[in-house]
Amino acid sequence: MKALVYKGPGQKAWEDVPDPVIQHPTDVIVKIDATTICGTDLHILKGDVPAVTPGRILGHEGVGTITEIGDAVTTLRVGDQVIISCISADGKCDYCKQGVFSHCLGDEGRSGIGWILGHLIDGTQAEYVRIPYAETSLHPLPPTVTPQQGTLLSDILPTGHEIGVRYGQVKAGDVVAVVGAGPVGLAAIATAGLYGPSRVVSIDVDANRVEQAKRFGASDGVLSSDPDWKDQVLALTDGLGVDVAIEAVGVPDTFRMCLDIVRPAGHVANVGVHGKPVEMPLQDLWISNIVISMGLVNTDTARTLLKLMAQHRIPVDEFISHTFALGDILEAYDVFGRAAETKALKVILNA
Amino acid sequence: MKALVYKGPGQKAWEDVPDPVIQHPTDVIVKIDATTICGTDLHILKGDVPAVTPGRILGHEGVGTITEIGDAVTTLRVGDQVIISCISADGKCDYCKQGVFSHCLGDEGRSGIGWILGHLIDGTQAEYVRIPYAETSLHPLPPTVTPQQGTLLSDILPTGHEIGVRYGQVKAGDVVAVVGAGPVGLAAIATAGLYGPSRVVSIDVDANRVEQAKRFGASDGVLSSDPDWKDQVLALTDGLGVDVAIEAVGVPDTFRMCLDIVRPAGHVANVGVHGKPVEMPLQDLWISNIVISMGLVNTDTARTLLKLMAQHRIPVDEFISHTFALGDILEAYDVFGRAAETKALKVILNA
Amino acid sequence: MKALVYKGPGQKAWEDVPDPVIQHPTDVIVKIDATTICGTDLHILKGDVPAVTPGRILGHEGVGTITEIGDAVTTLRVGDQVIISCISADGKCDYCKQGVFSHCLGDEGRSGIGWILGHLIDGTQAEYVRIPYAETSLHPLPPTVTPQQGTLLSDILPTGHEIGVRYGQVKAGDVVAVVGAGPVGLAAIATAGLYGPSRVVSIDVDANRVEQAKRFGASDGVLSSDPDWKDQVLALTDGLGVDVAIEAVGVPDTFRMCLDIVRPAGHVANVGVHGKPVEMPLQDLWISNIVISMGLVNTDTARTLLKLMAQHRIPVDEFISHTFALGDILEAYDVFGRAAETKALKVILNA
Amino acid sequence: MKALVYKGPGQKAWEDVPDPVIQHPTDVIVKIDATTICGTDLHILKGDVPAVTPGRILGHEGVGTITEIGDAVTTLRVGDQVIISCISADGKCDYCKQGVFSHCLGDEGRSGIGWILGHLIDGTQAEYVRIPYAETSLHPLPPTVTPQQGTLLSDILPTGHEIGVRYGQVKAGDVVAVVGAGPVGLAAIATAGLYGPSRVVSIDVDANRVEQAKRFGASDGVLSSDPDWKDQVLALTDGLGVDVAIEAVGVPDTFRMCLDIVRPAGHVANVGVHGKPVEMPLQDLWISNIVISMGLVNTDTARTLLKLMAQHRIPVDEFISHTFALGDILEAYDVFGRAAETKALKVILNA
Repeated sequence: MKALVYKGPGQKAWEDVPDPVIQHPTDVIVKIDATTICGTDLHILKGDVPAVTPGRILGHEGVGTITEIGDAVTTLRVGDQVIISCISADGKCDYCKQGVFSHCLGDEGRSGIGWILGHLIDGTQAEYVRIPYAETSLHPLPPTVTPQQGTLLSDILPTGHEIGVRYGQVKAGDVVAVVGAGPVGLAAIATAGLYGPSRVVSIDVDANRVEQAKRFGASDGVLSSDPDWKDQVLALTDGLGVDVAIEAVGVPDTFRMCLDIVRPAGHVANVGVHGKPVEMPLQDLWISNIVISMGLVNTDTARTLLKLMAQHRIPVDEFISHTFALGDILEAYDVFGRAAETKALKVILNA
Repeated sequence: MKALVYKGPGQKAWEDVPDPVIQHPTDVIVKIDATTICGTDLHILKGDVPAVTPGRILGHEGVGTITEIGDAVTTLRVGDQVIISCISADGKCDYCKQGVFSHCLGDEGRSGIGWILGHLIDGTQAEYVRIPYAETSLHPLPPTVTPQQGTLLSDILPTGHEIGVRYGQVKAGDVVAVVGAGPVGLAAIATAGLYGPSRVVSIDVDANRVEQAKRFGASDGVLSSDPDWKDQVLALTDGLGVDVAIEAVGVPDTFRMCLDIVRPAGHVANVGVHGKPVEMPLQDLWISNIVISMGLVNTDTARTLLKLMAQHRIPVDEFISHTFALGDILEAYDVFGRAAETKALKVILNA
Repeated sequence: MKALVYKGPGQKAWEDVPDPVIQHPTDVIVKIDATTICGTDLHILKGDVPAVTPGRILGHEGVGTITEIGDAVTTLRVGDQVIISCISADGKCDYCKQGVFSHCLGDEGRSGIGWILGHLIDGTQAEYVRIPYAETSLHPLPPTVTPQQGTLLSDILPTGHEIGVRYGQVKAGDVVAVVGAGPVGLAAIATAGLYGPSRVVSIDVDANRVEQAKRFGASDGVLSSDPDWKDQVLALTDGLGVDVAIEAVGVPDTFRMCLDIVRPAGHVANVGVHGKPVEMPLQDLWISNIVISMGLVNTDTARTLLKLMAQHRIPVDEFISHTFALGDILEAYDVFGRAAETKALKVILNA
Repeated sequence: MKALVYKGPGQKAWEDVPDPVIQHPTDVIVKIDATTICGTDLHILKGDVPAVTPGRILGHEGVGTITEIGDAVTTLRVGDQVIISCISADGKCDYCKQGVFSHCLGDEGRSGIGWILGHLIDGTQAEYVRIPYAETSLHPLPPTVTPQQGTLLSDILPTGHEIGVRYGQVKAGDVVAVVGAGPVGLAAIATAGLYGPSRVVSIDVDANRVEQAKRFGASDGVLSSDPDWKDQVLALTDGLGVDVAIEAVGVPDTFRMCLDIVRPAGHVANVGVHGKPVEMPLQDLWISNIVISMGLVNTDTARTLLKLMAQHRIPVDEFISHTFALGDILEAYDVFGRAAETKALKVILNA
């Protein structure tokens, strides 16, 4: 088959590789129908994720059709169309039993991380992929949801929802600020509406992105390059700050912005992937009664989001900015890699 | 002043009575700007609530303007326009400290019930009303909400929200059924949307009411007079039943309907005011892992709903079916009392 | 092998039957080391559970040693000593994914109930037993816990804990009443202490049992045959009633006792297995803000209880009143069946 | 009357001052029966809290007897013996209505902080003290609790309980580590037992304090000066870290220790008062699914702890290391200020 293979920092190829085969009775083989590229894939290509070794097929998102099942698989059948979760959960370790699939202790070469596809084992940017622990890592695609829409449930929507909105404990009436209006920030905005906020404020350096955020459900936008950006945000509250500040960029400045605008007894939910430490002014914050959360998606809410998507209760189509044939994946990487310029959000690859 | 006075079962009068006066340092006097009639007022007039004695001014809902404040009141001023909560909460008893204002133990003649206005003390269907424990029982009306809209926050919207939606623990993705599409059922429907359900199913005997419920946010409607009503409801779920069934009628049959359609591990939230016992088939239910809740509104979410109303996040204007001058309250009672015929929901009385 | 076989209402035999064999890749075979008899087994023998057909091996509790594993089993090994959960959870259906193992939809002949051992498939009162879905239905026994202690984690302790204490939402400072001081009531008492109650009141008709309950952690006891039993209970509160009332008998009278003593905004947790409907005075209760819960154990807290047992934080040894050899199971049934007379709590059968 | 007056950095005096008087209808005057000194008082004396101006009477803890009540006070009477909360809550601002008394917006010169006694208004280290918002800031002392025990409910026990144990979300079966075995760390240890942990590990530099912690409920102790201290802690878990790490010192090193030992999906609850920023390794932590909390006590659990104290369910007497007459307060300050040497925990001053 053809697959997108990591060849070391800065290098990748769309090339012929052996087809995947069933290795364990709980595996299935999935023929990819649609997949996409994640910001994390760009990080891997820069060499920022040393656990990914040359030869690895990238990709941890997608929808496909089952072509083969292991002997222990009873609830999935050949021909089923399924959403692939970016987290492979064995469903039987202590973390899985608590619903913390992100830290599944399964035996596929991992060390306490459930994200292994396109990371520690071969991934979804290929014609076929082996999915371990299939019955606890795949979701049947209902007929009312397209493969392209379903692909958003592999990672981006659950991440914004679980790590942003739910860890941030958004509740009815809250004013929610989302710092960063890239795909994951927009996913937080799009799912915050499920919790009855009174306002959702998008904050970004780019005026176009702030404007675009309103199509995903933001009620207000603030340009972080404005010198009085903080006052603008506070003016949208009772003056004491936002109830929930969601960090969706991954740099120290945006994390500090969240600490600056959260009200006493509010929540800061970090969704961004950080590369550096941040300084916390604990001399000021110890008295603030705030809660700070962070983490990798569990995808435990993918089925809930799928039900809502099937009822058209989440603005999903706005996420898909570009569509390519799977064989044109190198061009798709180029477009996605120049997102500031191409205005790419999610680029879909159809097989 | 003029007021609507209960004269014993079946009798009422709009007549001259003495103006209310401050009795305690925490009281205020409010000049009524808008008030309304509750189904409970009809029950009182039938003689069903013996604690209400002849001579009592009825009414526990309304918006007004403060004309006088007690010596201990520091956060409200003469001239403030305020929403009157149907629950008078002293804010200092053990129940109030836990947020269970419905069972406030305050000293205004009550016995463990926070609903005293138009019940144990004179109420709001009058030109003026004394509000005890004012700072913990009134909410300032923001300029973006009208007095007529604000009146819905005295009782009906918090009741549907707190006792239906929140006690029922509606959560993202749920299928919610509301049995009964009268005002309180519609209030549950209108506020369920704040919790991200995938479907909200209105169930009623009246096809017009089921249809009308869609304007309040119902996604689906089922006619309970259809012989296969239950199958119709189950068909809107995965076949196992609804996640949350909200009872908004108050008779044994509708309570049993909720037990019949709730899925294992689901919730039944009773909002209806019942006059008779119900038989629970505990021989079947003990194994069902369901939760059954019930209660009187606490109005602890009135401020949250007010914020959402100010942001136009709740369909409120649909609730107001008729408007009268306060002096025409007897006519308003007549219209509201024949709701099946007049299609009255909430009748607003403007002073 | 030898097993206790149900022969139809009123009849049972300890007789030779074929050894169980692996049927699915997720099965294991367990050699029983210790098992016990449940009140439910007595119900089955009376013919009260028609789903149990003649020829069925009874029993759903026990500790044993794995002698054979299916091809898909990777986290358990031959020789592991394990606690058998009374609930067989496939770990992959929608209910299991929500932790509601009690309503597992798995394919072992069940219809939405996770309790199948000794019910829909052969059980643990035997020398060997086949355990389906082994990796999500067994718990490794640590060396610091004996097989006899571990047997209490199959059903009785999780039932009292989950359906009594946790569904009842016992919290720090609460006054908790447990109506019924049989094994499951004592399990609720023994685990309530993990939630910081200020008092745990045991209520029973039998003075000896009330006294005995104190060894399990009850702070107070009330004899339900005393005419003023209710006043005695209220005197242990602030006069308004208990925070949580746990029903651990299973008849209408004891359920009503719970409704009589629970305070406004309190919880009634039904643990008892009921055979008849109960009348709920909803005309009084609609205004009470109480919550009523019920259900079959999920055993999702068995591992938590196991950790606590290993640290000697639960009074477990008090539960074991009699010990027999497995071959003497008919005698054990006789002793357990005359519990009022023999003062049997849990009778342990050692292989 | 006599009072301990702050005279500027490094200076204090026990001197004659005017008696306090009722200023608002919701005030009461309390004659102090017992008070104590808090670590915060030492900080104030160093000049670290510039909001405290010379002339201020210090102290925010104590039990006393009411000698005068304001006109709006109806639930307290002259002669009542009461516990003084360190937080003065007006009970009517938005924060109080949510139970976040720590950030009460009341009008006693504060700016969003409920701690005003001995800070922004005169405090409790005096013969008499004025208590504003008395009905929402005092708790009646039951006859079974001594004034000296009650004094522990003003601040230290609620702080350990609310900010350590509850913000840390300690749950049944958890392994809890408490870094720092001073009074507030011991308060966290003493109240953690109310939540059913399997282990409570005390970590400190001082072997005596670690040993002493076991009298407060610690199951294990680790000396933080041991080079392998972290391995020792992990060995008390399943190897993945503690469920909850409570910081009870207030310096960057101990905060980092908590981050080092918490397991994925665990909680870090900061109780310590910090004077410097801390560096958070967010490049490692973003993927960890941990939650970090912090804050000032709300004292909303003081009544719960009082009920438990009255039932002897919290080890309280161990906290009182020294007792003085109120007139000997300067000596008490000396002893408390040299705690390392004198082994002082709480020093009680009896009037």
